[in-house]
Amino acid sequence: MTHVLDQLTLADIARHLDATLVGDGGQAIRGLATLKDAEPDEVAFVANRAYLKDLPSTRAAAVLLHPEHGKTCPVPRLEMENPYLGYAKLSQLFDPVPARDRPGVHPSAIVAEDVTLGAEVCIGPHAVVEAGVVLEAKVVIGSGSVVGADTMIGEETRLYPNVTVCHGVVIGKRVILHSGCVIGGDGFGFAHDGARWHKIAQLGGVVLGDDVEVGSCSSIDRGALGDTVIGDDVKIDSQVQIAHNVRIGEHSALAGCVGIAGSTQVGRHCMLGGGVGLSGHLTICDGVQVTGMSLVTNSIHEPGVYSSGTGSMNNAQWRKNAVRFKQLDDIAKRLSRLEKRTRTP
Amino acid sequence: MTHVLDQLTLADIARHLDATLVGDGGQAIRGLATLKDAEPDEVAFVANRAYLKDLPSTRAAAVLLHPEHGKTCPVPRLEMENPYLGYAKLSQLFDPVPARDRPGVHPSAIVAEDVTLGAEVCIGPHAVVEAGVVLEAKVVIGSGSVVGADTMIGEETRLYPNVTVCHGVVIGKRVILHSGCVIGGDGFGFAHDGARWHKIAQLGGVVLGDDVEVGSCSSIDRGALGDTVIGDDVKIDSQVQIAHNVRIGEHSALAGCVGIAGSTQVGRHCMLGGGVGLSGHLTICDGVQVTGMSLVTNSIHEPGVYSSGTGSMNNAQWRKNAVRFKQLDDIAKRLSRLEKRTRTP
Amino acid sequence: MTHVLDQLTLADIARHLDATLVGDGGQAIRGLATLKDAEPDEVAFVANRAYLKDLPSTRAAAVLLHPEHGKTCPVPRLEMENPYLGYAKLSQLFDPVPARDRPGVHPSAIVAEDVTLGAEVCIGPHAVVEAGVVLEAKVVIGSGSVVGADTMIGEETRLYPNVTVCHGVVIGKRVILHSGCVIGGDGFGFAHDGARWHKIAQLGGVVLGDDVEVGSCSSIDRGALGDTVIGDDVKIDSQVQIAHNVRIGEHSALAGCVGIAGSTQVGRHCMLGGGVGLSGHLTICDGVQVTGMSLVTNSIHEPGVYSSGTGSMNNAQWRKNAVRFKQLDDIAKRLSRLEKRTRTP
Repeated sequence: MTHVLDQLTLADIARHLDATLVGDGGQAIRGLATLKDAEPDEVAFVANRAYLKDLPSTRAAAVLLHPEHGKTCPVPRLEMENPYLGYAKLSQLFDPVPARDRPGVHPSAIVAEDVTLGAEVCIGPHAVVEAGVVLEAKVVIGSGSVVGADTMIGEETRLYPNVTVCHGVVIGKRVILHSGCVIGGDGFGFAHDGARWHKIAQLGGVVLGDDVEVGSCSSIDRGALGDTVIGDDVKIDSQVQIAHNVRIGEHSALAGCVGIAGSTQVGRHCMLGGGVGLSGHLTICDGVQVTGMSLVTNSIHEPGVYSSGTGSMNNAQWRKNAVRFKQLDDIAKRLSRLEKRTRTP
Repeated sequence: MTHVLDQLTLADIARHLDATLVGDGGQAIRGLATLKDAEPDEVAFVANRAYLKDLPSTRAAAVLLHPEHGKTCPVPRLEMENPYLGYAKLSQLFDPVPARDRPGVHPSAIVAEDVTLGAEVCIGPHAVVEAGVVLEAKVVIGSGSVVGADTMIGEETRLYPNVTVCHGVVIGKRVILHSGCVIGGDGFGFAHDGARWHKIAQLGGVVLGDDVEVGSCSSIDRGALGDTVIGDDVKIDSQVQIAHNVRIGEHSALAGCVGIAGSTQVGRHCMLGGGVGLSGHLTICDGVQVTGMSLVTNSIHEPGVYSSGTGSMNNAQWRKNAVRFKQLDDIAKRLSRLEKRTRTP
Repeated sequence: MTHVLDQLTLADIARHLDATLVGDGGQAIRGLATLKDAEPDEVAFVANRAYLKDLPSTRAAAVLLHPEHGKTCPVPRLEMENPYLGYAKLSQLFDPVPARDRPGVHPSAIVAEDVTLGAEVCIGPHAVVEAGVVLEAKVVIGSGSVVGADTMIGEETRLYPNVTVCHGVVIGKRVILHSGCVIGGDGFGFAHDGARWHKIAQLGGVVLGDDVEVGSCSSIDRGALGDTVIGDDVKIDSQVQIAHNVRIGEHSALAGCVGIAGSTQVGRHCMLGGGVGLSGHLTICDGVQVTGMSLVTNSIHEPGVYSSGTGSMNNAQWRKNAVRFKQLDDIAKRLSRLEKRTRTP
């Protein structure tokens, strides 16, 4: 994680981004803003043609953009092939979070005696770290977060406040867990004896790869037998549920409110829109996109974009159509009969 | 917030509600209940005609109702034009929560030295309040809640236990944040370099207006650049996700499990049903209602009620119709062909 | 809760499960695994015909299975009519969680003076137990969990870390509450005065029966007047929202991301798939199943399986069909006209 630099010039930024600076590099830069809002000591960017209209009137110190948009830029510029990537890297320079970290264990934290702490670990107020835990260098455990027994957390991973990581979880390097998320709660497994439920103890764990991010209030359940596995560089938004023994391939991204049922396997470089549901025991191949709030109940073997649902409309119009949906099989059969009846013999 | 009164008579209540009392005002009132369950020292109410059937047999001390229902009331009554509003105001008189507040900082709380505390602030056990925070008068911070650096919280705002408010958030007056909610976690922003994701630091904040309520386990993410803004008197239920840079207009209400994607703007006096999803970058005008579990993928420019989905039915019937949905375009084309073919020339 | 046994032989297990052991019972058993992964000191099981293919090559110490599959088993076996139930009971023997409980109150926990603590209660670091609470024998309160005033918790109930139980909640015996869940937050109730919202204080409570389980980050709201009631042996997954005054009958199971709106009553032995939504004020009879992500807006009076939605498909195909859905009422009318027009007179 790059820390905030005190005196960052445009030339420093060009070097950091490996961008081509056109104009004077001496200006000190205080921050990052949109084309519209940028003050004369802030850098703006064009990552989307829709915002090009704001370029001529920007007051930014400089604009990060693609070379093809350079000529209409009224101020110094930083040219890059992928200005959105440039924006990402630049934003990290101005992130105030790392600068607040205080290496050491807060006196109110409860850390078991046999915990292994790497260099510069930060453990915040009222955090709890149970027996057998290993925290590698520069791990940050936020206030009120709990790390269960025998869990291992890799270098530079950050738990924001009030995160819960249960026992026996393995977390990679540079992982970010946002507040309220729960890693390693029990999967939902019960056997029925004809009258009532009997709990299946969830004996597996959770493995999060390197560079995983998990949003606030998301749940990743532990495996029943064997682990729930989230691959490297998987990005998970807020309010997501990932059930026991799910596996998610590297570099996939899951938007908010996604729910994935037990034992489903999602490939690499997949993207699930907000509110998507995947049934259990499916296999979704690499490179699949599912649009928002679609339900997938069968495995997908071809990369591509998948959807379900009806699209929204005015409620009065919708009511009429929704009633017809219930007649749809009948409509189709009537149409077939009519086709037969009117066919010239 | 009105505190529980020790000896509250019917006359006191009539005065508090600005209701017309018909009958003796001397009865001491202990609480509030439904027409059916009310004991002789409790007040009941009729806010919905469906419950009028329970009126003749009620044992309540008095009934809060519209004047038009007065004559069938067998006990003293409190007449108001809006008895549901009267019920709301009355319920607050009997709320036991404020009476339990203990002004002061619990010795186990960790409060940074430079925090500004207004009069009668209550900070509960194991709460954490970071540097630079301002808590105005009568703010309540529940047990285990964490308030991040430089956050400002207005008068009489209440954080229930185990709430997380991240750094640099601005919260208005009389706001209620329920347990487990997270205000100001990172928005979900990443740039792709063709092989992997790069995090976009979320440099904006969150602004909650006055009288906002946020339900348990809901997430309101901080802005990427600029703030996520929730207007005055917006009511948000449990399990809701509000992504970065969303703006919600005053007096709107969002039911449980709603998800709103990044940068969408919702107008004033909107109502989103449970589980509704709004795609990103939309504009929803004032006065829009969306029915439960509908997905909205386009901006809405006319007030009204909007819906998507199919309605539920018996699974056997549904299966037949759902199969036909996949043939719908074909059905429509066949119908058109048939219409042409059978048109008398 | 059964604790891990140090030296458990196959004969011990057969006795515990009331299974018929075929083969030598002397082997010491260390754990439980799938047919494929089991080591020679682990027990495997066949609860699903799909896994029978792995039976001939298993290296397990023994296999738990139905008598009809006994003859193809290459190793000692434990025969039972319901091997999945056997697996559940067996899994509990190897659950490492109970063995870590430390009876007593951690010195960092804040426990009010008048709290009633049963025998062998465990209260973890930084937990908070407010005034008037009763914790029966063997209750476990995890690190950072908060139990509100006057709440009662029955024998052997376990709160994992960072759970919030609000004031005046009644919880049965052997209940399991997973991290991040919130029991007894306010229901979502407001009266509108024509211009703005007025909060309805939520004066009811929550009652959880015996043997209830609630997943991580789920919300069960307290009643407005009267209680929200969850029957015995109801199993609730993660990310679920249950609104005020809902009632769920015994032995029902709710998968992840379910949302149930206010005052709806769900019968006994119901099963709601992931992401299902139930509107408010409905009555769902006993024995109803609703498939994943269906929305139910009307009461259901017949047991059976219910569904809504369209099924997912390739996005290009879906777009065409979704457009036609908006024309569905028109299509149906055109078909009727055509039927009339082509009817032989």
